[in-house]
Amino acid sequence: MNRSEIDSAWSRLSKGYSHFLRETPVIKLPGAVWGIAAAEVWLKLEHLQVGGSFKARGMLNRLLANPIPATGVIVASGGNAGIATAAAAKALGVSCEVFVPAVCSEAKRARLRALGAQVVVSGASYGEALDACLARQRETGALLTHAYDQPEVVAGAGTLACEIEQQAGLPDSVLVSVGGGGLIAGIAAWFEQRARVVALEPELAPTLFQARAAGQPVDVAVSGIAADSLGARRIGGIAWEVTQHHVKDALLLPDAAIRTAQHWLWSELRLAVEPAAALGVAALQTGAYVPRAGERVCLILCGANLDPAGLA
Amino acid sequence: MNRSEIDSAWSRLSKGYSHFLRETPVIKLPGAVWGIAAAEVWLKLEHLQVGGSFKARGMLNRLLANPIPATGVIVASGGNAGIATAAAAKALGVSCEVFVPAVCSEAKRARLRALGAQVVVSGASYGEALDACLARQRETGALLTHAYDQPEVVAGAGTLACEIEQQAGLPDSVLVSVGGGGLIAGIAAWFEQRARVVALEPELAPTLFQARAAGQPVDVAVSGIAADSLGARRIGGIAWEVTQHHVKDALLLPDAAIRTAQHWLWSELRLAVEPAAALGVAALQTGAYVPRAGERVCLILCGANLDPAGLA
Repeated sequence: MNRSEIDSAWSRLSKGYSHFLRETPVIKLPGAVWGIAAAEVWLKLEHLQVGGSFKARGMLNRLLANPIPATGVIVASGGNAGIATAAAAKALGVSCEVFVPAVCSEAKRARLRALGAQVVVSGASYGEALDACLARQRETGALLTHAYDQPEVVAGAGTLACEIEQQAGLPDSVLVSVGGGGLIAGIAAWFEQRARVVALEPELAPTLFQARAAGQPVDVAVSGIAADSLGARRIGGIAWEVTQHHVKDALLLPDAAIRTAQHWLWSELRLAVEPAAALGVAALQTGAYVPRAGERVCLILCGANLDPAGLA
Repeated sequence: MNRSEIDSAWSRLSKGYSHFLRETPVIKLPGAVWGIAAAEVWLKLEHLQVGGSFKARGMLNRLLANPIPATGVIVASGGNAGIATAAAAKALGVSCEVFVPAVCSEAKRARLRALGAQVVVSGASYGEALDACLARQRETGALLTHAYDQPEVVAGAGTLACEIEQQAGLPDSVLVSVGGGGLIAGIAAWFEQRARVVALEPELAPTLFQARAAGQPVDVAVSGIAADSLGARRIGGIAWEVTQHHVKDALLLPDAAIRTAQHWLWSELRLAVEPAAALGVAALQTGAYVPRAGERVCLILCGANLDPAGLA
């Protein structure tokens, strides 16, 4: 993964898909709001993206970069990746099958159906739904999208970094939540060493942290309040390679701090985001990440698939 | 009220208060998202302003433009005006008394106290709280802020229009919710005839609509889902004068359409706003306002003081 792949994704996504993808805003707040020495904290409001998460970028790029068979596209995910794939398929007018496990809530299934997807419930766990999805894909030849470990998906996520730089200039540091690592891979591949990219993970879903401890990607147990979107069991191969080159820090945050940050974003800024999107604020609030004086720190608010009742 | 007063407010608010007021983002969406002929719909995300509404602008301008006695500032409001006054007083380090009626919820009182205000509960209705507030003001000489009918408050609201023009250029039309009319007075005084400013009111809180029918400001009965923030009983004198010159259309919207629009803003755009902020979307969705082909329509999302549980 490199900058030229992200440039290609940017060109692809910029051509006539403005009715689908959105340029999401950046808000700049003075460090004083946070009681920290940083000059500014930038918030990239990517939770306002189509489908409520950054994943729309990667999924649309994947679909545009490949021929799509008559059998359409296929994905295993009841979360942001499934929603983004269904939304991208709808934008392009192709059919979409989404495999979800039985635990996937009726609300999520209804949202997928509202996007025109055919929802197939299969298995008790995400792993079983994925197996069924892969078997079905071999049968139909549909184009498979992966939540985080395909080059087009990572390059699409990288356009988020490119957009930040165009909108606001180069930040000094970028704090990115990591699950399977598709987002940080795209961000770090774009900024390379030009900005300090910091990985943030819940203590209860430490895929990158544990991979570093083991010297290679390993399966980890995942749970906790952000598992819904950061619950990949293993860091992706692309993310592993990119972060080895370009990401020095991989920090862990406790669930309680993530919850506090999520509530703070609502009560102080009226931003309703899912727990995964609150890790950057949690890192600043807990001092897990301490910016230098004058630093411009960019946080990515990556998703908003949540039940707002939980914010009250 | 005229452009030069708004220019003065802009200069005043721009000088060193960036740690208090925020530049709120504008999002541009293609008309196709709404199934309308408009080229673009601009959303000014002013609900992300400090205190969760545009009122922070007017209140800070009022406080900066006047000497503040040792007894501080005083206001009668349990809603956005009270919050904005308390927040502005806190930013300037002066004391603040907020008079609210007994019906004001404990949650709102707690929010005012968290901003450092002294909350005085007096009377059963807003009118009674206001009477008590005015009596107290005569006693202490504190600086009184009014929710919508003071020149500094209107000029502060007008900086919102000035900011839109700087950020995004001149729109063809601007759809503005009206309660007491402080916001539309500022917006219309800034744009004058350069953009078509359209007044939107709930059918159940028609202060401008009824004033036009009567030929002068009159008291109206107010109720319905937006009464919390658009529930002024009479259009302000400043708003009446400015809108007579610069606002041709005053449209009414039913509560059901406002509720639908509020839910749409959450489900489709992940914007959590109060009912008063959803009138622009309701006007487009119901066809109450029909933009021309190619029109750039700007909607003001003016506030986000809501219980998010209601969005679920």
